[in-house]
Amino acid sequence: MRRIAILGSTGSIGRSTLSVVESYPERFAVVALAAGRNLDSIFEQAKRWKPRLISVASGNDGEKLRVRLRAAGLEAIEVVSGSEGAVRVATHPEADFVVSAIVGVAGLEATYAAVRAGKTVGLANKECLVAAGELITAEAQRQGKPLLPIDSEHNAVHQCLRGGRMAEVECIWLTASGGPFWKTPKQEFSSISVEQALQHPTWKMGRRITIDSATLMNKGFEVIEACRLFGLPPSRVKVLVHPQSTIHSMVEFVDGSILAQFSVTDMRLPILYALTFPERIASDMRFPVMNLRHLEFSPPDMEKFPCLRLAYMAAEAGGSKPVALNAADEVSVAAFLDGSIRFDQISQVIEAVISETDAGQLESIGQVLEADARGRQAAREKVAELAGSRPPRPTPAIVRGE
Amino acid sequence: MRRIAILGSTGSIGRSTLSVVESYPERFAVVALAAGRNLDSIFEQAKRWKPRLISVASGNDGEKLRVRLRAAGLEAIEVVSGSEGAVRVATHPEADFVVSAIVGVAGLEATYAAVRAGKTVGLANKECLVAAGELITAEAQRQGKPLLPIDSEHNAVHQCLRGGRMAEVECIWLTASGGPFWKTPKQEFSSISVEQALQHPTWKMGRRITIDSATLMNKGFEVIEACRLFGLPPSRVKVLVHPQSTIHSMVEFVDGSILAQFSVTDMRLPILYALTFPERIASDMRFPVMNLRHLEFSPPDMEKFPCLRLAYMAAEAGGSKPVALNAADEVSVAAFLDGSIRFDQISQVIEAVISETDAGQLESIGQVLEADARGRQAAREKVAELAGSRPPRPTPAIVRGE
Repeated sequence: MRRIAILGSTGSIGRSTLSVVESYPERFAVVALAAGRNLDSIFEQAKRWKPRLISVASGNDGEKLRVRLRAAGLEAIEVVSGSEGAVRVATHPEADFVVSAIVGVAGLEATYAAVRAGKTVGLANKECLVAAGELITAEAQRQGKPLLPIDSEHNAVHQCLRGGRMAEVECIWLTASGGPFWKTPKQEFSSISVEQALQHPTWKMGRRITIDSATLMNKGFEVIEACRLFGLPPSRVKVLVHPQSTIHSMVEFVDGSILAQFSVTDMRLPILYALTFPERIASDMRFPVMNLRHLEFSPPDMEKFPCLRLAYMAAEAGGSKPVALNAADEVSVAAFLDGSIRFDQISQVIEAVISETDAGQLESIGQVLEADARGRQAAREKVAELAGSRPPRPTPAIVRGE
Repeated sequence: MRRIAILGSTGSIGRSTLSVVESYPERFAVVALAAGRNLDSIFEQAKRWKPRLISVASGNDGEKLRVRLRAAGLEAIEVVSGSEGAVRVATHPEADFVVSAIVGVAGLEATYAAVRAGKTVGLANKECLVAAGELITAEAQRQGKPLLPIDSEHNAVHQCLRGGRMAEVECIWLTASGGPFWKTPKQEFSSISVEQALQHPTWKMGRRITIDSATLMNKGFEVIEACRLFGLPPSRVKVLVHPQSTIHSMVEFVDGSILAQFSVTDMRLPILYALTFPERIASDMRFPVMNLRHLEFSPPDMEKFPCLRLAYMAAEAGGSKPVALNAADEVSVAAFLDGSIRFDQISQVIEAVISETDAGQLESIGQVLEADARGRQAAREKVAELAGSRPPRPTPAIVRGE
């Protein structure tokens, strides 16, 4: 019986995790849940899963939840709040597996605490590896516990790596859908609208990650994550465009053999893999192999997608640079979405910020958060500079909706 | 240092094995070689590799080789001959790895002897698993030694299987190029000429295997081999047509994950894999992943390619049926090549032979050889019957050449 704590239980990965747990009641139990501000959703999860402990973002919400739980006869569930509350969920003594799925740097502290407490961690939070990868992987190694990636690319790599030892790996090939502008000429990039950029060909995702997919920054983040997770230099983590996104990633071994992984594009699969590793258990998530028809591939164009090049630079430098990369990307994507800057200026903001960031090593999560704040501030200044130099444009309707 | 004996050293796999050995002199040594009738070639190999023991097909050739070795100052190399000689090579006390690459049922006895002597065996001989698979795999299991497949499909499966335990395997997907008649309408099959059938789209191979690829019987044999090698029922060994032959094969796990293997199409790669397993060592056989462009797939058509259906039937029945399948195929392909029967009659001969073969279990290599002889005889009779019912046609020039 695997006893699970979930950081980010009401988000997409959190809900998929609970759906996996629901399918295998004899294998998994839910011990603790950390959520944000979605009180209705966490209340429903409390009723369904009856965890020992719940954490919510604010103390005020915590009080409201306590009242509702009491009314439902669930006063035995302890309610805590804030980042300290999330840390308590992450380190709950009865939990042996922690799913890290709080979005953004908010998830860093609790995830690091889970690793330090000797939990096996399933990682869905990008920032844990992009911004704090060196710290977190070093700690996991000290603890002798695996970090199991819960996203289709790194999970695919993790599976393919079973075909040999790490010393036998030549390189990793991360596949990229290429996003909606794969075939758009570079000279048109300056006039790409928010609506166009939000149309992703293969995946339905949140707004920031959709833009990150369109700039290939998302793939750049994955390069950094792969470097940290698997201990490889950026030169040995390569990107191949594969518009169908069927093959999730590949590993090339020193003898010349390449293993590739594919499956249905359902997040429950990498979650199930992580929760049961080193075992595999039967699921109904079957890829219809007999229906396989065409797979296409092409090399990435770093000229047209400078974000990918910037991510490689940041991965190579390490320390504060990847933190600044992530912070600047978040700020500049938001600025693009609210109409302050153009699509092709996203990478300009990021390049300016990381070039003025020192590559200094980071010794603690506190230092990561400080570097993140500095990166954001620098990015806001760069955005203001660019926005000031061009007429503001109206925010498109699709953006106002959120 | 791995000490190697090669059964079939002057054939294609044998020569590729020696080429691998040549690239890694610090890892491999050649202890014993068994060849057929190519005296010049085995003499050159003797000079180059100075093995302890050489076996040739006939005693007469053995005497000639002894004379030549003496003249070259190599009288220390012992020369033996015949099937007993091949068994002595296969069981040489200094060898720890035996490459089984004698073509046809001639390789059975020596390979079985190698397994019984506790050697690790690299299998390139198809008949070992098609005709005697149940015997040989049972013996390898008793010895606790792996049987390592040296052909691109099963080697790919072996690699993919490392992604989980055997109990976690849902099924195996063998890829098939589809051969030259993949898109030919069924009604044209009766008029396919020998020249057309010898044009294989992807691989340059011997004549029988080229025809076996055109009828998909080769894939049928591989289905049987996979069943025996990996202990799976035929229903869990599936075939997918993949004209580029880039992906060599795949394994689907119970959780829904699929691992696929690909590499350059160079036999030295599966040989190197087998010789170094469970390690992988660096080679210069690099697949240019960045140049990957299109991969196509489609389901196989058992209606158009009855040989594949017959192989599944034989695999299911086991015992004498796969032996008869192989024997009847060899006879009927030869009859097609010499103009005695039509392309579409190859499967008719085989179907007639296996339907009149008992499925009785085989207890020894001797019984396998008897079943093989019965299958050949039955096939010859069926060929004569079909050939008698139609006018003979002239043997095409391309056939007379061999």
